[in-house]
Amino acid sequence: MDPSTLPLPPMKDLTVDNITENAIAMNSLCEDPRMKYVLERLVTHLHDFARETRLSTNEWMQGLLFLTEVGKICSDVRQEFILLSDILGLSILVDSIDHPKPPNSAATEGTVLGPFHTHDASELPAGSTMSADPNGQPLLVVCSVKDTAGNPLPGIKVDVWETDSSGHYDVQYAGREGPDGRCILRTDEQGTLWFRAITPVPYPIPHDGPVGRLLKALRRHPYRPSHMHFLMQGSGFEELVTALYLRNDPYETTDAVFGVKDSLVVDIERAGPEYATKYNVPEDHALLRYDFVLVSEAETTALRERNSKIALDKLGMKVRMVGGLPVPDLD
Amino acid sequence: MDPSTLPLPPMKDLTVDNITENAIAMNSLCEDPRMKYVLERLVTHLHDFARETRLSTNEWMQGLLFLTEVGKICSDVRQEFILLSDILGLSILVDSIDHPKPPNSAATEGTVLGPFHTHDASELPAGSTMSADPNGQPLLVVCSVKDTAGNPLPGIKVDVWETDSSGHYDVQYAGREGPDGRCILRTDEQGTLWFRAITPVPYPIPHDGPVGRLLKALRRHPYRPSHMHFLMQGSGFEELVTALYLRNDPYETTDAVFGVKDSLVVDIERAGPEYATKYNVPEDHALLRYDFVLVSEAETTALRERNSKIALDKLGMKVRMVGGLPVPDLD
Repeated sequence: MDPSTLPLPPMKDLTVDNITENAIAMNSLCEDPRMKYVLERLVTHLHDFARETRLSTNEWMQGLLFLTEVGKICSDVRQEFILLSDILGLSILVDSIDHPKPPNSAATEGTVLGPFHTHDASELPAGSTMSADPNGQPLLVVCSVKDTAGNPLPGIKVDVWETDSSGHYDVQYAGREGPDGRCILRTDEQGTLWFRAITPVPYPIPHDGPVGRLLKALRRHPYRPSHMHFLMQGSGFEELVTALYLRNDPYETTDAVFGVKDSLVVDIERAGPEYATKYNVPEDHALLRYDFVLVSEAETTALRERNSKIALDKLGMKVRMVGGLPVPDLD
Repeated sequence: MDPSTLPLPPMKDLTVDNITENAIAMNSLCEDPRMKYVLERLVTHLHDFARETRLSTNEWMQGLLFLTEVGKICSDVRQEFILLSDILGLSILVDSIDHPKPPNSAATEGTVLGPFHTHDASELPAGSTMSADPNGQPLLVVCSVKDTAGNPLPGIKVDVWETDSSGHYDVQYAGREGPDGRCILRTDEQGTLWFRAITPVPYPIPHDGPVGRLLKALRRHPYRPSHMHFLMQGSGFEELVTALYLRNDPYETTDAVFGVKDSLVVDIERAGPEYATKYNVPEDHALLRYDFVLVSEAETTALRERNSKIALDKLGMKVRMVGGLPVPDLD
């Protein structure tokens, strides 16, 4: 390549005030319109961040060394960059952007996936026990899954995962031999889902690394309130990544990763005579009930496009959708 | 710590529109006012970036995995996060912010330090040869160092470093036994600096890692134009990090790291009779001449404060300087 033939302005004499437009020009030969747009916004915000803070060379180097350490501690069973994204509120934001819910609908709200979902859980029949932990409080979980019109949804694939009674996921144990505290279930003809689990407990996110140090410097605790994760998939429906949180957990209003939503907070009830008989548990057995509502893919796609238009309109750009994601329409 | 006693709003029901203010509130108990301000701007721009791009979960994960890879490839002799900062224009921006030059002064402009400066170069007497490379074109370098009023500055400590004739710094060789292509000199009583080097050549930044892949996806070349680095330190003067670039280099106007400034572009001359006699070289020997001008620390500090006021004023904030860096003045 002869660099003198590149259709670019001369990259010289770059200053605090003109570096951004020039860096964007330098990236403008990228042939992927989505990547080009993402890089344009990335460079703009990265530079504005430095200009608005008057970032010093020392701070810049501290930041780069911090990011290096975050990368170094990542392994097959630890993703420190996800943790960093979680505690900065980026993960819940991206989830909210990517999985918009129709306003004023009954649609179940989403929340952070977290780093502990795996793809090796076993598919179990209804009523199965998904936790082998003898120290957990046995919990009967009975849920329904419907569409926004209230029709029950049979055959929905549901991933469920939770920690053991000590607050650790199975993947956090060095000697893990197979999945525990996780399973895959399918809703029955009535759209019902039921299984046996243990009552969730609060736990700290891994905080012995650079993210833990950052939390400490910010005087923040690393705890997540007690919760159980759900991931639901069904043909024609937008994937639902959510979790149910226990009411009155000590960390209910200061979740380290910003995941709690009031509509996802539940009470642990007692089974009572009806559930005791129907599900063959003692009357004083702990019970968690919830009615999930899924949104159609078509409705979600339309919502994403509408939200993209609003966001790019604020930047004075017309929008064109490419692969379901916005790029500026330059025509 | 009892989390219910934290002076924070309840962190629940966080949406695309309210997550930013809440994440900032969650970080607001930090006792370091500078860190708190930097985090506030970081969270704001990180979130605006996601909102303006409608960042998808897939793209978010791709980004995190890219950063993980950048961290993983870093070693004692390779800093891929600096490279990433360099090619995004952040490094030259931070340098310009941190080392402001008085407008309309003769002050020598700064440029990127780069990742190849070391602290083990030997202090050599004037006239020394700083490159052992037999294949390089021998170059006589004769410079002056003055203050902005034109007074010669004796005793200035000057770090110089350059690649060998193949475009590699000494630290890029696995079998490196000691410094080569680098030295420390001091200006003499007349503020003069002279030494023997080799004529710089263009070279690619390391591009066999994730940053190289990014450059390729952006259809950018990884080359830097021929240059020689200088770092100057003297009591009472602001440290000068700069470099001299060769005119008409093929990469002069498309430097992969945005470092070239017209005032730093020089011609390689012939020594001619006067320099040949004075410095004992043949008349047709290559010669590089430059007059450096340093700015006082006091002037730089005043400029930083002035620039900080302007930047925070744009955000509607009054400014207070802490350790030479701005934080919002909330009184």
